[in-house]
Amino acid sequence: MKAAVFHGQKDVRLEDVPEPEVRSGSVKVKVDWCGICGTDLHEYLAGPIFIPPAGSPHPITGETLPLTLGHEFAGEVVEVGDDSEGLRAGDRVAIEPVFRCGECAACLRGATNLCEKLGFYGLMGGGGGMSEFAVIPSYMIHKLPEGLTTEQGALVEPIAVGLRAVRRAGFEAGQSALVFGGGPIGAVTVQCLKASGAGQIMVAEVAEARKEKALDIGADAVIDSTEEDVAGRVRELTEGQGAEHSFDAAGIQETLQTALHATRKGGTVTIISIWEGPVQINPNDIVLSELNVVGTICYTPEDFADTISMLRDGRIETEGIITGRIPLSDVVEGGFEELVDHKDRHVKILVRSPE
Amino acid sequence: MKAAVFHGQKDVRLEDVPEPEVRSGSVKVKVDWCGICGTDLHEYLAGPIFIPPAGSPHPITGETLPLTLGHEFAGEVVEVGDDSEGLRAGDRVAIEPVFRCGECAACLRGATNLCEKLGFYGLMGGGGGMSEFAVIPSYMIHKLPEGLTTEQGALVEPIAVGLRAVRRAGFEAGQSALVFGGGPIGAVTVQCLKASGAGQIMVAEVAEARKEKALDIGADAVIDSTEEDVAGRVRELTEGQGAEHSFDAAGIQETLQTALHATRKGGTVTIISIWEGPVQINPNDIVLSELNVVGTICYTPEDFADTISMLRDGRIETEGIITGRIPLSDVVEGGFEELVDHKDRHVKILVRSPE
Repeated sequence: MKAAVFHGQKDVRLEDVPEPEVRSGSVKVKVDWCGICGTDLHEYLAGPIFIPPAGSPHPITGETLPLTLGHEFAGEVVEVGDDSEGLRAGDRVAIEPVFRCGECAACLRGATNLCEKLGFYGLMGGGGGMSEFAVIPSYMIHKLPEGLTTEQGALVEPIAVGLRAVRRAGFEAGQSALVFGGGPIGAVTVQCLKASGAGQIMVAEVAEARKEKALDIGADAVIDSTEEDVAGRVRELTEGQGAEHSFDAAGIQETLQTALHATRKGGTVTIISIWEGPVQINPNDIVLSELNVVGTICYTPEDFADTISMLRDGRIETEGIITGRIPLSDVVEGGFEELVDHKDRHVKILVRSPE
Repeated sequence: MKAAVFHGQKDVRLEDVPEPEVRSGSVKVKVDWCGICGTDLHEYLAGPIFIPPAGSPHPITGETLPLTLGHEFAGEVVEVGDDSEGLRAGDRVAIEPVFRCGECAACLRGATNLCEKLGFYGLMGGGGGMSEFAVIPSYMIHKLPEGLTTEQGALVEPIAVGLRAVRRAGFEAGQSALVFGGGPIGAVTVQCLKASGAGQIMVAEVAEARKEKALDIGADAVIDSTEEDVAGRVRELTEGQGAEHSFDAAGIQETLQTALHATRKGGTVTIISIWEGPVQINPNDIVLSELNVVGTICYTPEDFADTISMLRDGRIETEGIITGRIPLSDVVEGGFEELVDHKDRHVKILVRSPE
């Protein structure tokens, strides 16, 4: 079968690989759609970062590159291994691509996103969604309810990241929020804020296409830091108070520092982004304003399941964030290279596996 | 009357000043005891820091140095101005020394510790507790219940800082806590953790006298960063998990960074200290472990009142943190200079006003 295999920086190849065989505790899925994640792009441009390089196999999968990519995907079960109760061929499913060691304190309390050996299917091994078939641990499988397409199913993963961020923030209906970054994670955060009854959503973004997109999907205002002082503008928009919540989905020193200044006293700054290295902050900004600074990573199984429910009910709309649909055969040029050249135009490009 | 007046760095003078007169909305208090705060010492060594210098009057008091010091104090009401319902001569009282502008959003919701014009009686003007008499806004007055001495009353202020920190942390009975710094704020935090049913209290401290004191007042273990790796030792003491809570009462880059590493996934780092400037952190430490980083400043009126209740009930014991009692006449040598020379030996020196 065909699969998009990561060999190294700027080296993703569409290859013929053996079709995987179902094992006990797993199911075989015919992939329909798979999203290209910012993490995939990061690996393409500068990897291997999270992908285990030669000589350093991932502690759960035991694999190293070359590895099949794709961790935002959905499809249909075609074969079920032993010990996979409740699943059968024909089930349309989305994949929650987080491995579980099943032994650490985090896994034992259901916080699989904090597993000591944190690993992702389609990034650290196991197979991947940018292929025709994938054999997947049954615990990663979420059935899609009627009315939810596998195209929507491929968007559950990134949207679950936004839902967890909003939950970790302790966000309450009616509150105001400032989101730094209008890229894919910023966009899903805006959607989840809207679905959570946000009173006012402001997005700090500099790229024109992303500014427009942010307004399209629900932001009430966009603020361009190259044109105005973000914290000052937020104060104007919030009766002098600052935002009750800020979400940093940009992940640079400037956005975090601005978040600390643009958030009202007693408010919450939620950090969603992955960082390239240390940054400077003044802890007095946290102390004197009694801020809460909250980290959020991935999603728990509960977040993932609830995202599916919210999509099913139409509380989160997916059409607005799909900015491209390409066949698997075009994943390098129409996917990765398109994102390199025109990242700002896109939120989510979906890759269609061969029928 | 006599008062300890701050004129500048290393220049606190015991002076004769006019006895203050009661005004409407205030009461006149004969001071019994007043603690020397770390902030007072900081002002003595390097001030004016918070004390308004000449030309920059505080927005609420309109005052600049020279100013009478002392914001941790208690005494007896001797005269009551108009508009001071419920207070009368003879009341023994503790002073919650936070001014209120009464107009900002924080004041209006009772978060007077976050007042836009935050100011302290005995630091930014109004008078001070290191004197014989003080005239104090009635809203700052808390009556002491029977059985609670004015000596204990002088300790309410610093202990309320510890109580708020523990509350802001969302600390729950049975949880583990790591406190950075065994000075006055670290010590009251340990006491409030103990009173909150902490399962395990660890204190990171390097000074011998403070290490002993920490064990005296309730720490289960002390960890000396010059002798062992703090995060590693904490993991040993917590079944490999890290502390559920860390409290930074030391306020240097190393303690904050260590707190981020010594706190378990999903845990909370509460920052109590005031910082001299920016520090470097890696936000990935917050993101990948889903930490909560929480700022805490002073106390609200509710925290202050509840601290009094806890002292009355004996849930917080005060004797252990009093390390000196001196007369007001000795405040410079026996107070400030003693703390400069032997800071590590002391938690709280109390100053006795003339009878």
